[in-house]
Amino acid sequence: MFLTQPLHKASREQPQRLATVFGERHRSYAAFVDRVARIAGVLQAHGVRDGERVAVLAANSDRYLEILYGCWWAGAVVSPVNLRWSAEEVLYSLDDCAASVLLVDDAGLAVAQQVRARAASLKASFHFGDTAVEGWANFEALIAAAEPLADAMRQGDDLAAVLYTGGTTGRPKGVMLSHDNLAVGALATLVATPRPQPAVGLHVAPLFHVGGIAFAIQLLSRLATQVLIPAFSAEAVLQNVQTQRVTETFLVPTMLKLVVEYPQFRDYDTSSLGSVLYGAAPIDETLLDAAITRFPGAGFAQCYGMTEASPVVAALPAWCHQRQGHAAGKLMAAGVPVATAEIRIVDADARELAAGQAGEVVVRGPTVMQGYWNKPEQTAAALRDGWLHTGDVGYLDEDGFLFIVDRLKDMIVSGGENVYSAEVENAILKHPAVSACAVIGIPDARWGESVHAVVVLHDVAALDEARLVEHCRGLIAGYKCPRSVEFRPQLPLSAAGKLLKYALREPYWRDHRRGIA
Amino acid sequence: MFLTQPLHKASREQPQRLATVFGERHRSYAAFVDRVARIAGVLQAHGVRDGERVAVLAANSDRYLEILYGCWWAGAVVSPVNLRWSAEEVLYSLDDCAASVLLVDDAGLAVAQQVRARAASLKASFHFGDTAVEGWANFEALIAAAEPLADAMRQGDDLAAVLYTGGTTGRPKGVMLSHDNLAVGALATLVATPRPQPAVGLHVAPLFHVGGIAFAIQLLSRLATQVLIPAFSAEAVLQNVQTQRVTETFLVPTMLKLVVEYPQFRDYDTSSLGSVLYGAAPIDETLLDAAITRFPGAGFAQCYGMTEASPVVAALPAWCHQRQGHAAGKLMAAGVPVATAEIRIVDADARELAAGQAGEVVVRGPTVMQGYWNKPEQTAAALRDGWLHTGDVGYLDEDGFLFIVDRLKDMIVSGGENVYSAEVENAILKHPAVSACAVIGIPDARWGESVHAVVVLHDVAALDEARLVEHCRGLIAGYKCPRSVEFRPQLPLSAAGKLLKYALREPYWRDHRRGIA
Repeated sequence: MFLTQPLHKASREQPQRLATVFGERHRSYAAFVDRVARIAGVLQAHGVRDGERVAVLAANSDRYLEILYGCWWAGAVVSPVNLRWSAEEVLYSLDDCAASVLLVDDAGLAVAQQVRARAASLKASFHFGDTAVEGWANFEALIAAAEPLADAMRQGDDLAAVLYTGGTTGRPKGVMLSHDNLAVGALATLVATPRPQPAVGLHVAPLFHVGGIAFAIQLLSRLATQVLIPAFSAEAVLQNVQTQRVTETFLVPTMLKLVVEYPQFRDYDTSSLGSVLYGAAPIDETLLDAAITRFPGAGFAQCYGMTEASPVVAALPAWCHQRQGHAAGKLMAAGVPVATAEIRIVDADARELAAGQAGEVVVRGPTVMQGYWNKPEQTAAALRDGWLHTGDVGYLDEDGFLFIVDRLKDMIVSGGENVYSAEVENAILKHPAVSACAVIGIPDARWGESVHAVVVLHDVAALDEARLVEHCRGLIAGYKCPRSVEFRPQLPLSAAGKLLKYALREPYWRDHRRGIA
Repeated sequence: MFLTQPLHKASREQPQRLATVFGERHRSYAAFVDRVARIAGVLQAHGVRDGERVAVLAANSDRYLEILYGCWWAGAVVSPVNLRWSAEEVLYSLDDCAASVLLVDDAGLAVAQQVRARAASLKASFHFGDTAVEGWANFEALIAAAEPLADAMRQGDDLAAVLYTGGTTGRPKGVMLSHDNLAVGALATLVATPRPQPAVGLHVAPLFHVGGIAFAIQLLSRLATQVLIPAFSAEAVLQNVQTQRVTETFLVPTMLKLVVEYPQFRDYDTSSLGSVLYGAAPIDETLLDAAITRFPGAGFAQCYGMTEASPVVAALPAWCHQRQGHAAGKLMAAGVPVATAEIRIVDADARELAAGQAGEVVVRGPTVMQGYWNKPEQTAAALRDGWLHTGDVGYLDEDGFLFIVDRLKDMIVSGGENVYSAEVENAILKHPAVSACAVIGIPDARWGESVHAVVVLHDVAALDEARLVEHCRGLIAGYKCPRSVEFRPQLPLSAAGKLLKYALREPYWRDHRRGIA
């Protein structure tokens, strides 16, 4: 399979169909394919050869999409760089995958200025904003002057992307995904989460994360229209859903919450929305009820996965979000393994565990990565006999639903007992005064680790530590209840909306060593 | 990808779910996987090695499915043989692919008796009926005694099946399909034709045709229950839909017609049926209206394809069967190209034609066959620069819908004008007295070929040749109207329900040569 195939299809089947919408800029598929072929021409004219890495440091836009496909059309490998990273982190990723070309927009410019001269592998760098920037070649001018290139037709096991994972601990690792990995992943995700057709998709997740890239591939494979906004805001989401008649979108629950609770929600017509995908975290019942009230015509589906699996390995189907699914206790599941993902639950010795028993989630299938770039040891640790070790702790229930209990590194070992922080968090979240929370293990002279809760309240006067712990005691075993509680106005989140637990833990553990790596 | 992956998934996710239903015999996925592993054990114990061909000559049953997956589990290549073939044709296919093993049931026994001793490549042969047959090793006894084998894990480009195509002209050709071909084809078809979940599928098409095999793979990939009947009858279909609460089935229009017109239709509860797939021929409006009335809760979807493309390359979505699709004139389309199929329309010199222009349909994508077994010349003729030349004549309309005008060989050249028989047939079928028809070219001293119609009437008294030709003149150009008409009680159909035009042509052309090969 090859990721550029939908563009060849679009040229014949739907050349006049709207491919991208970015503010006032609208482009047909014919124009999109033409720009992709010219971008490939620019890259090749600047010495990019088959399999070379092209790094992109930018906010979401139609041009980001064109560049993604332009890299593949040129036979290059794209390496999207996280826009929230420090200059040192960006430089690390450029050096690590030996990127030949760096493409930046206005949002990436400040960091790019700091790293460009220091990244030894770079043969060229371009700015693709609307206004020319001194010292930077303007990509738009080069595209206009370029010859459209023929598709390099890389495919199958050929490398398509190097995606650097979160870097929440240690150095980021470059996940190597092939054309087949990403193309099969898109098909399997679409089978698991049926969407309305013809489709208009709204990108909210950043294109520098696998979730955004996968959503783009899912949309392209159906020759959908893709609507892009440079940054998340509830207003921008609602405005675009209304004006572009968006039929599907992909959000993290924290963003969905902001949309659903947006004060002027009722001013917008969102009736076109037929499918709401969310991921990175389960949805809680309160938010789901509010979201269903807001989007009565939409099917909700959770996608669970990781960059290393291209990414979706399980999806929670729409019916689990309805009364029947609630009643069956499936709402908190990560989902049902998708058609291409085998999931096994194993103990520390890689022995398979029975249904209902929690252990590490390991995955096999055609969407599992080729490995970590230039990191044979970490690759060997993650991929054992063809099975990807995810580092997530979970179990399969009797009906084959996958439940994620915690990240391995989020497990707290207190007095010899394993405490899964997600379980404690779920208990805390059931208190009506709690808006958000995170539970971590902190050093404890007596118990090794003790359970510590960081809590955000709707109303700071409504709850104190003693009453919160008492609330938890009614729901979970005593040893699982927080030993200490800290109230904060907000939690630290990554660009993808994921909770950054390491940022909470770091001050406590600076001078300690945890029992679990 | 590997076709046995769903069995590994089922063992963990759904071991107790019902896998197969055949009459009174019900088997769980746990039992299904156990039998597959034992069948693989039997095959390997009889000398079957990776990539060797195992031929199956049988009617549909749960055991046929087990054997299909048992072959793949053993690392073998399955070659399902057409049950309607003569002994000479069966022998030809066994010799051509050098089959090592022949598996037959009661339905295949008479022919198998004639060919077994003559097929030089056979190392072993088994009968898998319930009652032991003299001179044949009983497969059930061997399965019971066998050790379950570990999955051979053949995958990707490894060959999975050799399927002999129709043989309507000349010698049959063995289409070579890989694990990836068939696995990707199933995903792409599912994306194009969403189905209810959880699924109970009823097999009506024979498993010795690609349509039946593809339907099985589509069902397995969702861990569905598969209901099998040994042969088509409207009563058996309705009975099984009711008792097994069937949610989806795949039929040819001729079968659908018999079901819809079954006199006791109303005695059955068919409310579970959510998806009706059909293929091999477009549906006419009269039949569709009747079918929608009979199955108001079902989405209809046509699949267009060919063995060489694993098989689906276009699908007509459910909305085209509703008022909106009727109005847009899409009901007679073959469908929209599926995500993995690029479709080009080319002239005799392989030059691409514009939208609306009819030419040969050529297809590129990951589901296109590896070639014809042992036939490099025919392979080179069919696969040119990665494009499969289908032999079908069609066009893409402005909305990207594929319309099939005719098979190349069904085109009639009369007085220098091309007449597409499908167009004439459509005109004839619009007469209310006509039940079915086929239009062929027959030798004509003046025009080269003349248009000849073979017609089946509802009521033989209702129409004669003169009135039928007059009816056609109101609909199509004079040169396209039949020059001769022949009324018959029925048309010759293949086992898959496809019209066998060669059988109609053969008496006329025995001593002639047609202008079009």
